Amino acid sequence: MTYAAGRHFLQIPGPTNVPDVVLRAMSAATIDHRGPEFQELATRLLRDIKPVFGTTNPVVIYPATGTGAWEAALTNTLSPGDTVLAFETGHFATLWQEMARGLGLHVEFVPGDWRRGADPEVVADRLAADTAHRIKAVCVVHNETSTGVSSRIPEIRAAIDAAGHPALLLVDTISSLGSIDYRHDEWGVDVTVAGSQKGLMLPPGMSFNAISDKALDAAKTASLPKIFWDWGPMLTANERGFFPYTPNTNLMYGLREALRLLYDEGLENVFARHARHAAATRAAVRGWGLEVLCQDEREHSGALTAVLMPEGIDADKVRAIILDRFDLSLGAGLGKLAGKIFRIGHLGAFNDLTLAGTLAGVQMGLTLAGAPADPRGLQDALELLQND
Amino acid sequence: MTYAAGRHFLQIPGPTNVPDVVLRAMSAATIDHRGPEFQELATRLLRDIKPVFGTTNPVVIYPATGTGAWEAALTNTLSPGDTVLAFETGHFATLWQEMARGLGLHVEFVPGDWRRGADPEVVADRLAADTAHRIKAVCVVHNETSTGVSSRIPEIRAAIDAAGHPALLLVDTISSLGSIDYRHDEWGVDVTVAGSQKGLMLPPGMSFNAISDKALDAAKTASLPKIFWDWGPMLTANERGFFPYTPNTNLMYGLREALRLLYDEGLENVFARHARHAAATRAAVRGWGLEVLCQDEREHSGALTAVLMPEGIDADKVRAIILDRFDLSLGAGLGKLAGKIFRIGHLGAFNDLTLAGTLAGVQMGLTLAGAPADPRGLQDALELLQND
Amino acid sequence: MTYAAGRHFLQIPGPTNVPDVVLRAMSAATIDHRGPEFQELATRLLRDIKPVFGTTNPVVIYPATGTGAWEAALTNTLSPGDTVLAFETGHFATLWQEMARGLGLHVEFVPGDWRRGADPEVVADRLAADTAHRIKAVCVVHNETSTGVSSRIPEIRAAIDAAGHPALLLVDTISSLGSIDYRHDEWGVDVTVAGSQKGLMLPPGMSFNAISDKALDAAKTASLPKIFWDWGPMLTANERGFFPYTPNTNLMYGLREALRLLYDEGLENVFARHARHAAATRAAVRGWGLEVLCQDEREHSGALTAVLMPEGIDADKVRAIILDRFDLSLGAGLGKLAGKIFRIGHLGAFNDLTLAGTLAGVQMGLTLAGAPADPRGLQDALELLQND
Amino acid sequence: MTYAAGRHFLQIPGPTNVPDVVLRAMSAATIDHRGPEFQELATRLLRDIKPVFGTTNPVVIYPATGTGAWEAALTNTLSPGDTVLAFETGHFATLWQEMARGLGLHVEFVPGDWRRGADPEVVADRLAADTAHRIKAVCVVHNETSTGVSSRIPEIRAAIDAAGHPALLLVDTISSLGSIDYRHDEWGVDVTVAGSQKGLMLPPGMSFNAISDKALDAAKTASLPKIFWDWGPMLTANERGFFPYTPNTNLMYGLREALRLLYDEGLENVFARHARHAAATRAAVRGWGLEVLCQDEREHSGALTAVLMPEGIDADKVRAIILDRFDLSLGAGLGKLAGKIFRIGHLGAFNDLTLAGTLAGVQMGLTLAGAPADPRGLQDALELLQND
Repeated sequence: MTYAAGRHFLQIPGPTNVPDVVLRAMSAATIDHRGPEFQELATRLLRDIKPVFGTTNPVVIYPATGTGAWEAALTNTLSPGDTVLAFETGHFATLWQEMARGLGLHVEFVPGDWRRGADPEVVADRLAADTAHRIKAVCVVHNETSTGVSSRIPEIRAAIDAAGHPALLLVDTISSLGSIDYRHDEWGVDVTVAGSQKGLMLPPGMSFNAISDKALDAAKTASLPKIFWDWGPMLTANERGFFPYTPNTNLMYGLREALRLLYDEGLENVFARHARHAAATRAAVRGWGLEVLCQDEREHSGALTAVLMPEGIDADKVRAIILDRFDLSLGAGLGKLAGKIFRIGHLGAFNDLTLAGTLAGVQMGLTLAGAPADPRGLQDALELLQND
Repeated sequence: MTYAAGRHFLQIPGPTNVPDVVLRAMSAATIDHRGPEFQELATRLLRDIKPVFGTTNPVVIYPATGTGAWEAALTNTLSPGDTVLAFETGHFATLWQEMARGLGLHVEFVPGDWRRGADPEVVADRLAADTAHRIKAVCVVHNETSTGVSSRIPEIRAAIDAAGHPALLLVDTISSLGSIDYRHDEWGVDVTVAGSQKGLMLPPGMSFNAISDKALDAAKTASLPKIFWDWGPMLTANERGFFPYTPNTNLMYGLREALRLLYDEGLENVFARHARHAAATRAAVRGWGLEVLCQDEREHSGALTAVLMPEGIDADKVRAIILDRFDLSLGAGLGKLAGKIFRIGHLGAFNDLTLAGTLAGVQMGLTLAGAPADPRGLQDALELLQND
Repeated sequence: MTYAAGRHFLQIPGPTNVPDVVLRAMSAATIDHRGPEFQELATRLLRDIKPVFGTTNPVVIYPATGTGAWEAALTNTLSPGDTVLAFETGHFATLWQEMARGLGLHVEFVPGDWRRGADPEVVADRLAADTAHRIKAVCVVHNETSTGVSSRIPEIRAAIDAAGHPALLLVDTISSLGSIDYRHDEWGVDVTVAGSQKGLMLPPGMSFNAISDKALDAAKTASLPKIFWDWGPMLTANERGFFPYTPNTNLMYGLREALRLLYDEGLENVFARHARHAAATRAAVRGWGLEVLCQDEREHSGALTAVLMPEGIDADKVRAIILDRFDLSLGAGLGKLAGKIFRIGHLGAFNDLTLAGTLAGVQMGLTLAGAPADPRGLQDALELLQND
Repeated sequence: MTYAAGRHFLQIPGPTNVPDVVLRAMSAATIDHRGPEFQELATRLLRDIKPVFGTTNPVVIYPATGTGAWEAALTNTLSPGDTVLAFETGHFATLWQEMARGLGLHVEFVPGDWRRGADPEVVADRLAADTAHRIKAVCVVHNETSTGVSSRIPEIRAAIDAAGHPALLLVDTISSLGSIDYRHDEWGVDVTVAGSQKGLMLPPGMSFNAISDKALDAAKTASLPKIFWDWGPMLTANERGFFPYTPNTNLMYGLREALRLLYDEGLENVFARHARHAAATRAAVRGWGLEVLCQDEREHSGALTAVLMPEGIDADKVRAIILDRFDLSLGAGLGKLAGKIFRIGHLGAFNDLTLAGTLAGVQMGLTLAGAPADPRGLQDALELLQND
């Protein structure tokens, strides 16, 4: 393979750029996962992972990628035939409800146009209508990785509460955790699903469930089969700093380092940094003469921005030009957005000049592809970065 | 923490010592798992993983640890209420059948004394008796990590064939693959379960299913629920070099390097090396005046050796002394062998002098613990290493 | 220390950004420098290093930084009291002649304004005037790291030849080798001095002397004292793939990998890439309304660009703002240029978007510092990158 | 190249086994050596390096291997024609005096049999006889890497003092620093020469001079030419945390980590560990029926042990067998000991079981070579390790 000089720009909305210090931490020698050194590592990690979720409750760490944590959230809290309420906010919300169906659940799937988040009013209406409490869980994707739209979890929580409905609230934070403000306890979430490879700045391979007391209660009677994903043996073993089966030790080294980076920077600062880069990216998109996919100002994602192509421009061709000419990877449009958008990830280990390089690459690529690309785009972004 | 000078001796039977070159390979930057570079990586890996399984059929790579691959083998081939035949060869065989029960299967569990492998004659008898073909699968652990006993897979295959029984043969090679001769195709295995962290010399976090055509057929009707573990979308996506959900890219870098090491050494040489180290270890155990747990000369494991303590000696105390004084981790007795044995792992990236250091540490630790430890033990091992 | 999210932009004119693959190569275990594995490594390196110098003659590899290779070039070819002709092309040329004086040589130092290279006509004149052949060597810095000005070595060679003068030609390529076209043999250079930490994309710690036959002859009678720098024992030991004293093995691993990268890309392509980035940088500087230090179009450096600040703007304050706000390191003005210029390194492992990010950072910093910073600057640079 | 499974045993007396954590530290991105982050790094290192030398005076850090630090010690304190007193304690003492001669010094070289250290009585006699104080420096190798014999520096210091002689005391601690008790200040040493690749557990590429006030005084008039090695600009730049020329930043990262390891373990513990391993090694040698080269019980090296072969056994053949069969590198006999001894390094990052593996490898190799190799050797070593 020919050497492409310099560093690849990995600006998909995850996996994100893993800091070198995290990669190095992961390359330490694997240790005995039944020995005292591991026990100390795990005990500390299981404690230190909590603040990033905004919880004091247990967080389960799976040695598996995020799709598994989706499955865990469902199988640990629900039984065959249970109904869940879900929202078609984008590709991943759609996949999650397909998984639910595949596991034998009944899904009320509220249609959507992939340009806004789950509507709290709809939550309120549906739950109010469900006087029989057939709905056992409300599933929401906090940040739709396929669209760059965030759902407003506190408002959804309020809607559930207003309806006086006992449904669990299951939230996917795979592309928001560690990038966008999130508070498992304060917002009354029952299961938070997360992964390692986005805001946590790790390679993929690890995923999480943060679990409320109410969810723990639900787990007692949930009868969907599960062994690998079963919270029970995990929580029991975790109490002593161990796992019921082999954990992925080296990613745990990485997690320790990644959490140190996040807490050293300060979660508030981390969230502010992401919000600022998101604002600069939107400024660029609009400056170029293009449209941001997200249509509700309250719901712009801090983690990624989806850019809508005008009629006649194939977003995948734009991406291919940009990858080929500028060694910059962008996210493709997924599902029904294929070819219509591309996605700029600006989450994880990221800074102003990497954003500037990214936006420059997009601007040049748009130009080469014959798409609108007014140089005002990059200029506006830089003005924002410079002045904020 | 105080610095323990020098390198830890990780001689549990897995995770094993990961070669530095593999750790370094894993610390390369994560790439876009939907891009062309990943596609090339995955396409080559999915091809190059096959010889180590001895198969030309597909091998599924899970971004999850080995317990998940157990679950995958069962859920992809079986339906609720199906019967499987399993053998109590040790702790892991017991856990696997517990998993099967937990998933809603019926298990015929043939009792055992944890000192020998699955008995081909019992296989023959049970299957011959099952004229209704209620038994859908025979589950065997190739190398019992808890006992250091290998089951004779070709003879079990022959027994199934002799009985003319259509049951699938599911084999756990978690601690044998890449260490002990194994041939998925030639031996007529239907699903081979494996993990990254033993003979493949990788950190934990990745697991495998090698799948026969017959197993692929069975999958069409198997109705146990599964999404993450589902072969179907995996095999479809793999055909183009992709995954249906996020793979663990960095472990894939490591796998590429680990396979290169194995094939450069030559699988025949790898197996011979393990067998030689196992023989030297048994020579040491006997020289010390102790007993090897495995009772059948045909079934000694090439990957680890379990050492039986005489009455009155707590194996865990011996292990603790050895860890504390000599920075050497050994495997504990598991389940009903707790406190009665310890296990010496001699698999993976390993050589004569590391074995010599390991055996010296065990010999000194046994002496300090008041256990039999005739210096003839190490001496006999060295003579074997020196002359073979 | 607070964590600065994302990757630092190290755009000083060296040390340059070391590719991860080189850093990882360097972290392999140190080996016996008197053993066969080292011998093979060194033999291959001593051969493979030659093309980057454009030589088939020996290249000495010192386990020491570049200043040592300067000293080596002088002490191996000259005797106390010898005269050398040198040119005040900038800070490093000045330091080199100071070293020569310090070693007991007599230096004819041709004054310069630090904005152009060594003048071939002056070379011709001085040598023509030196009918007694007192001048034993002409010392030229190929690429002045302090100014971004390259001297035209082939023309200097031609001037020496035209004068029929026997002086040796010693050339410092510390910041040009591997970035700017260079040909030791074809251009008739006698000693080429180089270092690891610029175009060779390695950390500092290694330096080089490429040596012509004429220089080897001169070494026989050169009486300046030297032991560590002595070519003699080095060349003798190198013949068998060894060193007369301990080499720095781990940097040699890095060098092997760095050369692989350079040759895979192709030296022609490497040079073209640097030239293109230099042109884009000059376009930016001029677009901002600023002046490039170098005054001769034939002498613009492909490796770095020095930017002259207008009266009243302290270049070091600009740099401080840029480092503080945008985590971008630029080179300071050195010696008599202190505070008057800053230097943008665009050499080594580098690509379009990193340049774009760099130029964006400079543009924003200039703006914040109240310096001219017309956004046309970045725009012009991008147009060049986009269209070339 | 065929893969040799497992980890190479690098038991030459340096370069030593570099801890993984040090190798990883060294693979961090290179930073601007003129920036604030470097300044903080260097300032701390220049302070933290002092305790390992046992000094509160300055220690100069050269970005070059140890031979350069020898040259620095001589050129910074002496003038052409000065006389130094040196002792033929082995190969490296011989090389150092050759260097002194090569630099234009006059050397009184006291002959020796390479089996004992510099004799304090001879020091006393020679200095007493030198009433004219022609001798400007006494050069002693603290630990002869070629013989495994340590010289008694405090007694030599006492001898100089007893003679009332003003000569400087220059001591080479290249293979003792960080392994054997050493006290620059307390023992009144004037220049201590050291390198990175032995007890400091780093790759080669860095060397040191610790400098007494008296040596600093001598430097004012010392007229041997030096630029790269000149203490003056180094000490001046170091005061502000900088270097007069490019330092080797990445090795400095490693040094920071290596010092942390040494101080975490505690220098006393480090020295005791080395002494214990040296004692166990001697026990093995004698148990095998072989002779340790060192003939004075007070002078056994804690860092390495040289083993004398009986008549008729070629030590290099023994080494070749051991390298080939057991992947263990041992040190060759150097100079007049070539073929007569081999050297076992037991310094740096090292522990009991690595020593056991090493001694097992030597014992097996001796047996295969037909040399005396009574298994009592390893057994005696293990008894010592077990009981101490």
